[in-house]
Amino acid sequence: MTKTYNFSAGPAVLPQEVLEKAQSEFLNYQESGMSVMEMSHRSSIFENILEDAKTALRQLMGIPENYHLLFLQGGASLQFTMVPLNLTQNQTAYYVDTGSWSKKAISEAKKIPHVTVSKLASSEDKNFSYIPEIDENSVPSTAAYVHITTNNTIEGTSFQTLPHFKDVPLVADMSSNILSNDYDINDFGLIYAGAQKNIGPAGLTLVIIRDDLLKDHINISNMLDYRIHVKNNSLYNTPNTFGIYMAKLGFEWLLAKGGIPEIVKENKEKSGLLYDFIDHSKLFTSPVAQKDRSINNIPFLTGNKELDSKFVSEAEALGLVNIKGHRSVGGMRASLYNAFPMEGVEKLVNFMETFEKEHGGK
Amino acid sequence: MTKTYNFSAGPAVLPQEVLEKAQSEFLNYQESGMSVMEMSHRSSIFENILEDAKTALRQLMGIPENYHLLFLQGGASLQFTMVPLNLTQNQTAYYVDTGSWSKKAISEAKKIPHVTVSKLASSEDKNFSYIPEIDENSVPSTAAYVHITTNNTIEGTSFQTLPHFKDVPLVADMSSNILSNDYDINDFGLIYAGAQKNIGPAGLTLVIIRDDLLKDHINISNMLDYRIHVKNNSLYNTPNTFGIYMAKLGFEWLLAKGGIPEIVKENKEKSGLLYDFIDHSKLFTSPVAQKDRSINNIPFLTGNKELDSKFVSEAEALGLVNIKGHRSVGGMRASLYNAFPMEGVEKLVNFMETFEKEHGGK
Repeated sequence: MTKTYNFSAGPAVLPQEVLEKAQSEFLNYQESGMSVMEMSHRSSIFENILEDAKTALRQLMGIPENYHLLFLQGGASLQFTMVPLNLTQNQTAYYVDTGSWSKKAISEAKKIPHVTVSKLASSEDKNFSYIPEIDENSVPSTAAYVHITTNNTIEGTSFQTLPHFKDVPLVADMSSNILSNDYDINDFGLIYAGAQKNIGPAGLTLVIIRDDLLKDHINISNMLDYRIHVKNNSLYNTPNTFGIYMAKLGFEWLLAKGGIPEIVKENKEKSGLLYDFIDHSKLFTSPVAQKDRSINNIPFLTGNKELDSKFVSEAEALGLVNIKGHRSVGGMRASLYNAFPMEGVEKLVNFMETFEKEHGGK
Repeated sequence: MTKTYNFSAGPAVLPQEVLEKAQSEFLNYQESGMSVMEMSHRSSIFENILEDAKTALRQLMGIPENYHLLFLQGGASLQFTMVPLNLTQNQTAYYVDTGSWSKKAISEAKKIPHVTVSKLASSEDKNFSYIPEIDENSVPSTAAYVHITTNNTIEGTSFQTLPHFKDVPLVADMSSNILSNDYDINDFGLIYAGAQKNIGPAGLTLVIIRDDLLKDHINISNMLDYRIHVKNNSLYNTPNTFGIYMAKLGFEWLLAKGGIPEIVKENKEKSGLLYDFIDHSKLFTSPVAQKDRSINNIPFLTGNKELDSKFVSEAEALGLVNIKGHRSVGGMRASLYNAFPMEGVEKLVNFMETFEKEHGGK
């Protein structure tokens, strides 16, 4: 069988060692006589898994004690509602509009009755192909927060430097580059991320919230209230226990590799190989401003829809799967998350080279 | 190693055949070269899993075409908010208060601004040890719905017959006895259930909703809006893909066994063995009204707290684990879901017999 390289934007490839470890103890975790899936979330054996996951994540990201870690459900999409619901009390929330997911975050925030939404900057004028300039002085100190999407999965851009706002917390949807870029946690008030790209399987959402943002307010639901989840250590109701276990294995895998500095180096090598080929190609181009390129999601195009389709189907036959671009950008997209191996990028670039020779320049 | 029998109330024991099947294809699902966890939720291979899960569930429960099946996140606890948010437009919602989980459902519904909550009946006067009589004529036809908890996990009671209300839909939290009791789907407007008892792993929530309940309304969040999830076939955002796959395996396991009629028979045999022993015991008693006994969650007590603790720790040493009762009822609780094997009940009853001989009657 041809080896498969999975370029999916998420759910995405997981580390082979993590999958093998999970498989080996799938029926009987640590001689407990049961699968992790069968354990009470209130048992000491599961609580150890949860604590180990938190400890490893704190170590990886250098998370200080004044930040709480939550493992929730509902994905980034439910955070689009929870963030404004919890963090805004008749204040204005500022959003930077950098792509499809930012737009959804904005549109969901607008539905909350007590929230006023203001768009701080946008790159919609050029199909979100760059990260817009942000005027840090235009946000008043009374603002609830400023929301950014650190990496734009669909458009392939990411924030290389973060904006700073005096007294106003920065909130980030970090779904597609958490644990794969080197950010300083102290620059953020709140970070959220769906697990299915760099953390673990889908159905788990990570929230990291600074303690001072847990303010008194009236909430319409315990399940939508960060205070309740913090108070109950993510065990207010039954969490996605197997997802937390898989995340723990993933965090430990990354620590054993050398943590964020090592994975950033690898991610830059992987994306560098692909960008370098694109930059010298006579057939393939990147639709993204060079200064704002993501190292995680890399769209590229031939400029010819039929040729793009041909590329996607021939790539698939070679085991290079899920490389079709999102319909809003077109062409191809290679998602190179932490678990994606270098040899998959090499194989892709080799195929691009062959394809280019066959189909000439533009 | 002693074989473990897991009496946990949830997350709970899963069918051994289901776990073994999932383990065998954990790294490479159907020669796709990837784990189910690594698949895009928009790939045809995953969509087949989702459709197979729905087809099997429709067959098991006899679900007609005018009901939609949704696989969501957030557990029954998030449904406590979603049900009133979606189903009530300045109407009164009626709740039957039969235990800890009903109380939470009521308390969450009360937080929704446009909802008026009325308690239709309660058994709190006797620590929820029975199912109260319901006056079917006391609910006006203008009511939004009547909410019941079909099986009370903590208290060990369940509805043996369902109330009927002309023109007013019955909404049920069926978390702890879905697929393990024989209900007629046509008696309900909406059913919801956390997966972690009779369906699959935690982190997945099943919602079955009758089409006419998808009414026009303003919702504060797409993620809390049944219409959005129905329109997108549970793929509005990334669902718990592995949970859906495990649920599919569980549904297929149950179908192969003979479906609901067969499992109800088995569940009655398992619970019957335990109840029969309790009814003849000089040491153990059931705190639950005989007519309202659950076949899924069976609390029992010695009447002596020290003796209860001794029983729990000696049982554990024999591999009979997670049998400690909930603090609000005390004593012990045996949760006998679909996947719990008869030999575990036999082993429990044998141990109860030994324990009773050793510690005499009361």
